[in-house]
Amino acid sequence: MKKLNMGPETLLFPMPACLIGANVEGKANFMTAAWCGIANSNPPMLTVGIQHHRYTYKGIQQNGNFSVNVPSEDLVKETDYCGIVSGSNDDKTETCKFTVFYGKLKTAPLIEECPINLECKVMHVLNLGSHALVVGLIEETHVSAECMVDGEPDASRVKPIIYGRGAQKTYFKLGEPLAPAFKIGKELKKKE
Amino acid sequence: MKKLNMGPETLLFPMPACLIGANVEGKANFMTAAWCGIANSNPPMLTVGIQHHRYTYKGIQQNGNFSVNVPSEDLVKETDYCGIVSGSNDDKTETCKFTVFYGKLKTAPLIEECPINLECKVMHVLNLGSHALVVGLIEETHVSAECMVDGEPDASRVKPIIYGRGAQKTYFKLGEPLAPAFKIGKELKKKE
Repeated sequence: MKKLNMGPETLLFPMPACLIGANVEGKANFMTAAWCGIANSNPPMLTVGIQHHRYTYKGIQQNGNFSVNVPSEDLVKETDYCGIVSGSNDDKTETCKFTVFYGKLKTAPLIEECPINLECKVMHVLNLGSHALVVGLIEETHVSAECMVDGEPDASRVKPIIYGRGAQKTYFKLGEPLAPAFKIGKELKKKE
Repeated sequence: MKKLNMGPETLLFPMPACLIGANVEGKANFMTAAWCGIANSNPPMLTVGIQHHRYTYKGIQQNGNFSVNVPSEDLVKETDYCGIVSGSNDDKTETCKFTVFYGKLKTAPLIEECPINLECKVMHVLNLGSHALVVGLIEETHVSAECMVDGEPDASRVKPIIYGRGAQKTYFKLGEPLAPAFKIGKELKKKE
């Protein structure tokens, strides 16, 4: 199999397309982030990489908290918009017609239209260079009722947006179920 | 829209299904991780959350480096297997019939059959509780030639595995292209 070397590149597939929320000077603002991932289970934590100059980052510093909102397919236009326009120039909440609500942390703005909302408290910030890596403690999780199946959110109902880096820089839909996790691999185990 | 509170939960959609590689006592070992994400662009860095007791983690500590391999759909059985069996009990490379190669870092094992391979040097380790958050500097990127389109890897050819937490714990395929990134949002901009 022929391999090409590309040098150091941020090439991970898939990446999420999330909306990071923070109150900046008391007003809700949201930015798009693909550089977001789960970090720890007990207690639940996640990371998000944010450029230092971002307007949303200012809000994260002001409040010591932020939100991660998982948009669904039907919000792809709004999700992209929040990645190309700065909150310093536009009230993105208004432009995107987001319904904002607040939960346990009181100052981390949540988007009602997004099926999943995580409220996070800043635990660590690592200055990595171009980006600050913010480690957030997940304090509360809100899930839209219609996405629940057997007491758990169902990925096929959440319909998350997947960011695919590459020549085209394209958002993708979640595809068909491929195989059951923690199960299909056992077939290989039996063979041995 | 009715929202349910689930308490603090690691609910992010989508999550990748990656194979983290490290040499343990000189022998290649791989574990599956969904808790992996990009952290920084300049220089390129990523994070992976790993339980302290993991066999692969031992190798990361021994060498100060590791790999992140992005498997494609056809490796779903092997990917799942590497998440349910420990390298302390099995030579997963042999069971999965992986062709291992080494690159720039010499001791970070890479899987030829995976379309994307990232070689990473450990930069930071944060002990977050259940998991160590390993921040890796991406030193080299290898891409299978057949996944390249216009000099960039193409998500539709990589065919990454998407892990969907939820009632079913299912791996999903990447779906159809939804919209062009850094473009579709401009429609909203013009309307204002």
